[in-house]
Amino acid sequence: MSNAFETAVKTVRFLSVDGVEKASSGHPGTPMALAGIGVELFTRHLRYVPTEPGWPNRDRFVLSAGHASMLLYSLLHLAGYDLSLDDLKAFRQWGSKTPGHPEVGHTPGVETTTGPLGQGVGNAVGLALASKMMGARVNSPNDAIVDYRVFGIAGDGDLMEGVASEAASLAGHLGLDNLVLVYDDNKITIDGPTSLSFSEDVGKRFEAYGWYVQHVDGHHPAAVGKALDAAVAEPSRPSLIVARTHIAIGAPTKQDTSGAHGAPLGKDEVLGAKQKAEWPTEPFHVPAGASDLFRARVAENQKVLADWKGRVAKLGGPRAELWQKLSTRQVPASLLDELVTQVDGKADATRSLSAKLEQKVAELVPSLVGGSADLAESCKTTIKGSGEVKRGEHAGRNLAFGIREHAMGAICNGLALSGFFVPFGSTFLVFSDYMRPSVRLSALMGQPAIWVYTHDSVLLGEDGPTHQPIEHVAALRLIPNLDVVRPADGLECAVAWAHAISRTNAPTAMVLTRQKTPTLARAAGFDPRAILKGAYVLDDAADPDLVLIATGSEVGVAVEAKQLLGDSLRVRVVSAPCWEAFCRQPESDQRAVLGSGVPRVTLEAGRTSLWRGVTGEAGLAIGIDRFGASAPAERIADELGLTASKVAQAIRERFAGGPR
Amino acid sequence: MSNAFETAVKTVRFLSVDGVEKASSGHPGTPMALAGIGVELFTRHLRYVPTEPGWPNRDRFVLSAGHASMLLYSLLHLAGYDLSLDDLKAFRQWGSKTPGHPEVGHTPGVETTTGPLGQGVGNAVGLALASKMMGARVNSPNDAIVDYRVFGIAGDGDLMEGVASEAASLAGHLGLDNLVLVYDDNKITIDGPTSLSFSEDVGKRFEAYGWYVQHVDGHHPAAVGKALDAAVAEPSRPSLIVARTHIAIGAPTKQDTSGAHGAPLGKDEVLGAKQKAEWPTEPFHVPAGASDLFRARVAENQKVLADWKGRVAKLGGPRAELWQKLSTRQVPASLLDELVTQVDGKADATRSLSAKLEQKVAELVPSLVGGSADLAESCKTTIKGSGEVKRGEHAGRNLAFGIREHAMGAICNGLALSGFFVPFGSTFLVFSDYMRPSVRLSALMGQPAIWVYTHDSVLLGEDGPTHQPIEHVAALRLIPNLDVVRPADGLECAVAWAHAISRTNAPTAMVLTRQKTPTLARAAGFDPRAILKGAYVLDDAADPDLVLIATGSEVGVAVEAKQLLGDSLRVRVVSAPCWEAFCRQPESDQRAVLGSGVPRVTLEAGRTSLWRGVTGEAGLAIGIDRFGASAPAERIADELGLTASKVAQAIRERFAGGPR
Repeated sequence: MSNAFETAVKTVRFLSVDGVEKASSGHPGTPMALAGIGVELFTRHLRYVPTEPGWPNRDRFVLSAGHASMLLYSLLHLAGYDLSLDDLKAFRQWGSKTPGHPEVGHTPGVETTTGPLGQGVGNAVGLALASKMMGARVNSPNDAIVDYRVFGIAGDGDLMEGVASEAASLAGHLGLDNLVLVYDDNKITIDGPTSLSFSEDVGKRFEAYGWYVQHVDGHHPAAVGKALDAAVAEPSRPSLIVARTHIAIGAPTKQDTSGAHGAPLGKDEVLGAKQKAEWPTEPFHVPAGASDLFRARVAENQKVLADWKGRVAKLGGPRAELWQKLSTRQVPASLLDELVTQVDGKADATRSLSAKLEQKVAELVPSLVGGSADLAESCKTTIKGSGEVKRGEHAGRNLAFGIREHAMGAICNGLALSGFFVPFGSTFLVFSDYMRPSVRLSALMGQPAIWVYTHDSVLLGEDGPTHQPIEHVAALRLIPNLDVVRPADGLECAVAWAHAISRTNAPTAMVLTRQKTPTLARAAGFDPRAILKGAYVLDDAADPDLVLIATGSEVGVAVEAKQLLGDSLRVRVVSAPCWEAFCRQPESDQRAVLGSGVPRVTLEAGRTSLWRGVTGEAGLAIGIDRFGASAPAERIADELGLTASKVAQAIRERFAGGPR
Repeated sequence: MSNAFETAVKTVRFLSVDGVEKASSGHPGTPMALAGIGVELFTRHLRYVPTEPGWPNRDRFVLSAGHASMLLYSLLHLAGYDLSLDDLKAFRQWGSKTPGHPEVGHTPGVETTTGPLGQGVGNAVGLALASKMMGARVNSPNDAIVDYRVFGIAGDGDLMEGVASEAASLAGHLGLDNLVLVYDDNKITIDGPTSLSFSEDVGKRFEAYGWYVQHVDGHHPAAVGKALDAAVAEPSRPSLIVARTHIAIGAPTKQDTSGAHGAPLGKDEVLGAKQKAEWPTEPFHVPAGASDLFRARVAENQKVLADWKGRVAKLGGPRAELWQKLSTRQVPASLLDELVTQVDGKADATRSLSAKLEQKVAELVPSLVGGSADLAESCKTTIKGSGEVKRGEHAGRNLAFGIREHAMGAICNGLALSGFFVPFGSTFLVFSDYMRPSVRLSALMGQPAIWVYTHDSVLLGEDGPTHQPIEHVAALRLIPNLDVVRPADGLECAVAWAHAISRTNAPTAMVLTRQKTPTLARAAGFDPRAILKGAYVLDDAADPDLVLIATGSEVGVAVEAKQLLGDSLRVRVVSAPCWEAFCRQPESDQRAVLGSGVPRVTLEAGRTSLWRGVTGEAGLAIGIDRFGASAPAERIADELGLTASKVAQAIRERFAGGPR
């Protein structure tokens, strides 16, 4: 180890320790252990230029073990990112650039938001896949525009999580040789030694997935460097480097203990560690020369960047055009109009109507890629005329995620984080639960992912309660920053896609039926842009007695119920495909749709809980507050009160003097 | 293959095919492929007596690939369970005993509800663990009262799911040699060949987990039988039998195709398959002798049962008492009173208050066992004075699940399904998302699981938005049949535990703070049973101007806000630890708490969406409708309007003529 290297390692180690100490909160042990690997990566392997953190072909570094955030912040500071020593001192404080866990978009150089374990592994797989897929689109022989590599660090917790297992299996299947994951094998978790619960052979498991696995001493920089070189050189497999490390290395009494995992070391222990390392005791000490190796690396990288810019500038013809479209995720301004012209008015399941529109979106937006968790046939999300992404064949737009919903979520997030793609992932709505942590992260990170969920109610029928969503639409609506769109017919599907694609800084969930829904009749001259507001008057009545608000497959039922009620109760039918969008409209616009002082009835084949805020006690929320049942859809609709006649009857009983 | 065996196999195969055909819906291919393995299991390996489906020491059969439900129903019918041919003919019909996916409690002989993939593997691990844990409690040398084995069947989909990976890793760690999993390796999923997305070496992966792995031809009964015998004889490891099978074996054109996976074969294909098998074409044909091998097996099993009953009858002393308590999951009638006497009135975090009470529950209810997903220290859920369950040591009550929340959920469900245990599983509330599919299944199955979620709001502080639940309390409340309890102080924690333990047919989520909460002042003579109603008047006002409803850590804030408002606005404070329980009270009781015509304000450090149904437009829902931030808790509380003064201010502005 050179002096300069050792100085850098110690600087990272003690900046991390001091940051946690000052915050009186955080995880010091892992940054201490990983400082050497971090410095090795940032000074000898990673391609990055801190002044251009958005360089599209930079290598991506993913700290899946996000609790070791001070490691990342210390490295980014030394590397020259816009992250000052004062920023490090503000670790875990309100408004600082250095939150408890790394947050993408918040801190330059942070590539993804990590902390919920295992997610970073999935993100890394998605980022690596994006590099391959972009390369297949815009590179030509001897002229690589996108060929970045992805380096990640994962801990025991990451690799115990199922989402990481799923993602690793798929990465092996796809042979993502541009992915290098360092496994911080420190034998310690929060509750104690890993031997409490974790005795599997991780290396062998990753070999079974098809990875190239190496074992090294994580505190031997030359060995780590050699393994990283071999991993980068590996021509056909993703790499796992099992690095045996010692948590809180150098701490006099806490090294190799869980005591150093999730709490500050404490004054005496910090002092002892610094003395042992012959390090000044003053906090946040950065000696002269601590950045030297980083600076040298950045200087090299700057040449790589200049060279890359030259190559991009020379792009011409269709490649230049494609590069432009993909690197900006370009969406034509005419998209909504183009989609609307696709709508032929034929009635069908919204999953099928959506499928047709998706083809048009795919044609107009080359960034759209995606796939299904083994339900492509049922969700109907395959992009036609385009191939499947496979090992060594990355030009396609369709991804087969296998029966791995959670990894699908985390990998789609990685695809989005690349900056090149608008990914979609599809499965049955009930299985949104399997990927919920990734959906939440897409919303927290503000990524333009599109989650396509079909079979959206008990009306999927015979599969029964295990497959019938009841609470899922509502549960998705609870996630901040996620828009949930449940279109009722072809036109609403067109607007739903336009809406989803327009959300460049936030994800959208599309909620679609298995069963056929009717095409809604709309007044002549109806402007589809009204649908973009989230809710609109579909079928009005003069001086209405009540407003009936429905979504998706229940809008047609509402229209029919209105007809059954005839003149006895004058009903305004409101279609509400996206309640979140509606709530963002000016209050006056909301009033124009919902009326004032008119009782409200809501109708949706799912939990009524959220709708009760709309109906108040004066209104009526019709829905399902129990688990479903296995039977043909018609029978279920009747038994659970979702037919037009049952709905009309419920309304009559509530509002026309019938029994309450 | 004997004639009798072959007849049984064909009967199962075609009953399954005919069931799917009649329902015009379902999955025929897998039952066809697995008929042989199923008959082998039910006629030569499983210990069961159909007339006593609740025999506590029966072997458990778990069909994790629940979509192959007709396989299970056909086997149960032939074995002599209370499941008639007419029941099979009513496959997937409203109210039938044969729903689309197997449902425990609905069909005799069904041990768990499966369909959501991977869950059954986790349930099987939990059931096997329960057998070991019960054995360690009630067996003596040469006198086994509980030593049942668990046999499961899992498909590709199950083994791709992360939850199964997590559970398998833990099963290997714990050396559950009483668990035998048959992997239906048919190379086909719904979307096509597994080669689309799944090329890992599953056997090698399970070896890495520490399993004993065998490979067999799944259509060679003798080989399957030999492998099952070897698996049962394996003394220290769980077993995986990789059985190569052919989906829809014998179907003339659909064998080995995904076309046979999720849709009826169709008339011609059924005819062809039957002709090829020399089988009568009439549907639901059960030839004489089809049940012979089953009957012979049951006769043997009846002897085993009689012998077992004899041993149980002879139990005496403490073993008999323990057996009685565990096999009935006995809870003393005095539990609530005993817990209440534990409450010393000292203020603390509700996670700490809960921890003390949990110790008392553990003392009084031997069935209580559980653990944490590597957050035992933070969630404080360790049962003191009891050991950790380890490989070969199963007498303890504490389980280290590792960083595997999803498997924790599925394994706890298995522990509950054993009938012996009331399991708890703990993690941070934000990670309830990781295990949500299992929580949902605990509710659907009506199992008495207790989900302990701590760090229940943004007030956990510095860990930041990745760790701060916003929508999670509301999202859990949306799951039908799950009660969510968020206690405010020690007394409410005592009632929360009594409530959770009393729910023998449904799960409960306990939602607890990281930070200290004040002890609430209550009127002299306050009856803690009032808390059991879910919401109660904590601090009343004469002729109140408004009712302020709060939960958990916000109840103390509400009381303080009331004091700040003084006489300017007379506030009734309602504490609402369990809204689901409150909604089950008679309307008159609800009115007595909430009043009539008095504006309502709700206060909870999370999403306001559900509360808007309580407040209506006339009221005010105070909460958090954005993601959190990394900072010390006090700062967050102030920034997000959760301090008493900010709450009082918001109320004043809304109700006392201030700016709206």
